[in-house]
Amino acid sequence: MTYRVRFLPDDLTIEVPAGTSLMEAARRLGIELKSSCGGQGTCGRCAVFLRRGEPEILQGNPPRRLSEQGGVLACRVRVTCDLLVEVPEWARVVEHQVVVDAHPGRLLERDIDWVERFGRDPVCRRQELRLPAPTLTDNASDATRLSRALAQQVGKEPVHIPIDVLRGLPERLRSAQWCVDVTWSAADGPARVVDLRPPGEWRTLYGVAVDLGTTSVVVQLVDLESGALVGERGTYNRQFKYGDDVISRIIHCAEHPGGVEELRTAVVETANHLIRQLLREASAAPEQVVAAAVAGNTTMEHLFLGIDPRYIRLEPYIPAVTRFPYLEGRDVGLEINPHAAVIIIPAVASYVGGDVVAGALIAGLAECEEVTLFIDVGTNGEMVLGNRDWLVACACSAGPCFEGGGITHGMRAVPGAIQSIRIDPETFVSQVVTVGGAPPRGICGSGLVECLSELHRVGLINRAGEFQDVPSAMLRSGEAGPEFVLVPREAAGVDEDIVITEADVKNLIRAKGAIFAGIRSLLKAVDLSPSDISRIWIAGGFGTYLNLQGAVRIGMLPDVDRSRYGFLGNSSVKGARTALLSRRAREAMWQLAERMTYLELSVGPGFMEEFVSALFIPHTNLDLFPSVTADGNRGGESNCLGTCP
Amino acid sequence: MTYRVRFLPDDLTIEVPAGTSLMEAARRLGIELKSSCGGQGTCGRCAVFLRRGEPEILQGNPPRRLSEQGGVLACRVRVTCDLLVEVPEWARVVEHQVVVDAHPGRLLERDIDWVERFGRDPVCRRQELRLPAPTLTDNASDATRLSRALAQQVGKEPVHIPIDVLRGLPERLRSAQWCVDVTWSAADGPARVVDLRPPGEWRTLYGVAVDLGTTSVVVQLVDLESGALVGERGTYNRQFKYGDDVISRIIHCAEHPGGVEELRTAVVETANHLIRQLLREASAAPEQVVAAAVAGNTTMEHLFLGIDPRYIRLEPYIPAVTRFPYLEGRDVGLEINPHAAVIIIPAVASYVGGDVVAGALIAGLAECEEVTLFIDVGTNGEMVLGNRDWLVACACSAGPCFEGGGITHGMRAVPGAIQSIRIDPETFVSQVVTVGGAPPRGICGSGLVECLSELHRVGLINRAGEFQDVPSAMLRSGEAGPEFVLVPREAAGVDEDIVITEADVKNLIRAKGAIFAGIRSLLKAVDLSPSDISRIWIAGGFGTYLNLQGAVRIGMLPDVDRSRYGFLGNSSVKGARTALLSRRAREAMWQLAERMTYLELSVGPGFMEEFVSALFIPHTNLDLFPSVTADGNRGGESNCLGTCP
Repeated sequence: MTYRVRFLPDDLTIEVPAGTSLMEAARRLGIELKSSCGGQGTCGRCAVFLRRGEPEILQGNPPRRLSEQGGVLACRVRVTCDLLVEVPEWARVVEHQVVVDAHPGRLLERDIDWVERFGRDPVCRRQELRLPAPTLTDNASDATRLSRALAQQVGKEPVHIPIDVLRGLPERLRSAQWCVDVTWSAADGPARVVDLRPPGEWRTLYGVAVDLGTTSVVVQLVDLESGALVGERGTYNRQFKYGDDVISRIIHCAEHPGGVEELRTAVVETANHLIRQLLREASAAPEQVVAAAVAGNTTMEHLFLGIDPRYIRLEPYIPAVTRFPYLEGRDVGLEINPHAAVIIIPAVASYVGGDVVAGALIAGLAECEEVTLFIDVGTNGEMVLGNRDWLVACACSAGPCFEGGGITHGMRAVPGAIQSIRIDPETFVSQVVTVGGAPPRGICGSGLVECLSELHRVGLINRAGEFQDVPSAMLRSGEAGPEFVLVPREAAGVDEDIVITEADVKNLIRAKGAIFAGIRSLLKAVDLSPSDISRIWIAGGFGTYLNLQGAVRIGMLPDVDRSRYGFLGNSSVKGARTALLSRRAREAMWQLAERMTYLELSVGPGFMEEFVSALFIPHTNLDLFPSVTADGNRGGESNCLGTCP
Repeated sequence: MTYRVRFLPDDLTIEVPAGTSLMEAARRLGIELKSSCGGQGTCGRCAVFLRRGEPEILQGNPPRRLSEQGGVLACRVRVTCDLLVEVPEWARVVEHQVVVDAHPGRLLERDIDWVERFGRDPVCRRQELRLPAPTLTDNASDATRLSRALAQQVGKEPVHIPIDVLRGLPERLRSAQWCVDVTWSAADGPARVVDLRPPGEWRTLYGVAVDLGTTSVVVQLVDLESGALVGERGTYNRQFKYGDDVISRIIHCAEHPGGVEELRTAVVETANHLIRQLLREASAAPEQVVAAAVAGNTTMEHLFLGIDPRYIRLEPYIPAVTRFPYLEGRDVGLEINPHAAVIIIPAVASYVGGDVVAGALIAGLAECEEVTLFIDVGTNGEMVLGNRDWLVACACSAGPCFEGGGITHGMRAVPGAIQSIRIDPETFVSQVVTVGGAPPRGICGSGLVECLSELHRVGLINRAGEFQDVPSAMLRSGEAGPEFVLVPREAAGVDEDIVITEADVKNLIRAKGAIFAGIRSLLKAVDLSPSDISRIWIAGGFGTYLNLQGAVRIGMLPDVDRSRYGFLGNSSVKGARTALLSRRAREAMWQLAERMTYLELSVGPGFMEEFVSALFIPHTNLDLFPSVTADGNRGGESNCLGTCP
């Protein structure tokens, strides 16, 4: 028995077996609904409106405001009749708007062409071969004939031909009349045949660079031969439904038989979804993608390969693997050429993954003489300090604040998220800028940093983060203590006031304190002070929208000359793309991973002491923030506000 | 709807869906019925007796004699009711009686311990590792910890850990409390982890040596660590039903979509059937088999790997591959450890395969100074001539005679096959010896060689193979011309006289002529004469029972001192076993395959002239057979008859 479900406003219809959950029906159509409880009916994020049909509804807990409007939780609805469903914007997982271009007017985004710097030498190459047709006297086997000709052309022996390619070899050579384009890879030592085609059948040879973020996955489609970036797409990681952060996903693996496979499938499917889109846009076939480079944090790299990550979160925090073997497309389930060379960027430790190694390359740590700090702020703050002679790395748990988690009106940096804020010191009225200019619906990481800075600047909170008694209607007592109204309901894109509570402020202070304590721990380990750092590179989407001045003012980042700071953008996917295109860059990443000395912050009391000292704005020790102290409450320039896109 | 079919005398019952063929039902129980028409109802070999039940019977062509007795063709019976079926001996594919021991009293079977000669260094080894448990300060990944410890113990880097092994690594290491037996292989350059177990979980590490014959498959189970032969099993190749010889199987592949896969499955299933038996006898688990070495003719090696062999039989006779890549158990479908190292012995050309290369090693061709001839007689005669400095090889089509095909009462060397024969020159009465001493049912290859020799010796046929007018009731005119009765119906194990016809004799002369012409062509190519050959090694089951004197007398083998001859037994499986146990022997085989100059006999008129000259008994040129000519009709000693088992 099947029923038809039509979704509005998409106007997409699907036929599903009776009993299918409405969430699953939507998913099959590519409509991703929010969920952080894993379909338990508790998080209330997947609420939709039933416009026609009366299906079975399991017990759940839709937010009161929604159920009054007729909202139901899609995860609790079982399709037991034909349905017409409306999916409101707020229930949708919005696809990232990936920003490929640099942001004019922002702090310089570093955009060195690392491929040029290291030399172009892609993972896979193509060689046209004209083989002599065999005769009774020249009767070497097809494989020998091909290997010899290839070895002669590319100067690399032995040539390995995978068994699947061998199976099709006789037909392919003869149907192409002994003249073929051979695609081969030398990523793993010997030359390895990846594909065989009649000459010119493929106009372009592609590679995909994949950044596996805990929150989102970004894929770049690259022309392997010219090095050109053909397209880029990003979307939410479908592992989402198993938990927001790596820890809850690892717990899912540990507690559910088959959980690792569920998570592997989810993230691989996410990547495949993006690859399909990119290939459609480029009018290319999956087989044309003959190489992939994948970077992610250590847990994501494990899950992508279906390796149990459970010991990553148990002391002494040991990953199963940090240097990954040579893999082929079919080994990892990507919808690309089954023999594509798949490179996983090596990780360093459980909390310093391939994304950090890729970022360290993009930050120039493989070559630079000057002391450089690389920081990637997400749920974890991962950082690397050093130069071409020495490297130390660490990770500190900042909690989910900067990704919008654990904050009353926190949200990710999608349209409607407040990314920048200014509070009038007289009226305490806030001016906000949102992502995409949409009506404000919540606050994303960069907005929260600026919010904290502004609350302190105008005197709404003290250095410990406690609200002060100021004469403003915007400051009020909420259910959980004092709260400050940033955007009143009338001006908001949601049906309530957007506020920040004292609990939120405390959370933010802990998060920024962890980052700063991490940086201090690295410096201490090598006996340097902040002023010794010549360059500070900030990676990730968080960095892209960050108000640097604000981040220093709250004591999250060191108080050094602002010109030493720069943004790298998504250095994980950039590093992966560089690995696709340059053998030497790939080797440099392997060496970076080898060379990084991992500082486990939970060993010894050092980090905890630093953390406690950092639980003030900007810090217990004001000497560490001379410019902030000098700034006082003068309302220093915000170097970003005016030019945010 | 299912029905029950009970088979007698096995007393095995199976339930099958309505419409299943009786042949298939038998197969599922492990009762293999003969078939050479592929279930078309034309060869009449699968006739069985229905004892109860009246199923649907499709049109077919059972032999008249059988249908009179109530016999039906199992391939044409559809199970449409419960059945009781009797399977007569003659419809069964009899399992080989593999002779593992040398035959005392026979011409010396060469049994040099090649593993000792080349040095024992098996494909896979086992190493007990005690890893330091990780701590916060010693926090290398599981894979790094394992690789380092292994590299240190075995002095080989880098260590490759397959992705499947990585997936289970964290649990395996921890459940074994960081003390594990690591099985690793270095067959392909870098050390590669095959398996991980708690120490001592496996008493023995096994390898399988597989000989893929066109007719039969033999598997040896070997203790990789001690080198001991644990067991040996052989049976008919299940590809049987797709044709008797490689050519008809290649045609099957070319004419049936999916044919290559059918043939691959059939031969892999045959090997798996034997492996299962051997493992059961040894009380071992499939995972304990961590290495396999496989030898067969070039077509069989292609089919085993699912590679289309069709161009092997089309001029200019080009195989897809002769040097095979590194493979794992899971790549080839063997029921052994999925990561077992699988070695396919390299082939030389379309008709000189890995079985010949393996045989050449066992014949000593990798090392010997003296000129040596290696011959393997089957449907093709394959031969290698040379020494450690030079090697020439060829193959000539002897037709199916020596395997029992194309001869009125020809059969394979199974119980009841006449393997030796003596005709009284006065009475023309024959004395026969059969395999296993069973009542005679036909004649196998070695019996046919001796029969031809005896027919000529007693004057029943002239040098051209024409029956002579002798006064004997045994010589008569049959449907297809003159024929001689070897065993009258009363003494036979079948319901008719066992005869040899003039057409049979002509077939045999062509077959022996092809073998001799091949040897002559090799000698001519290097400008040597038979007397220059110091040693002649005959391989295969045919060699084991061969009457050497008879083979020389008919002009099949060169007339040199008989002491220069020796038998190798199954040198294909011996070579495969040697490859499992000795790295240097494996390398020697690779070099043998490289060094063999393949002589394509269809190029130029040389072979055809030799062939025509060899169509007499013993030859047109009697000078080539001085001892035979001197022998005259004196009835020379048959050096085998008395001692055949």
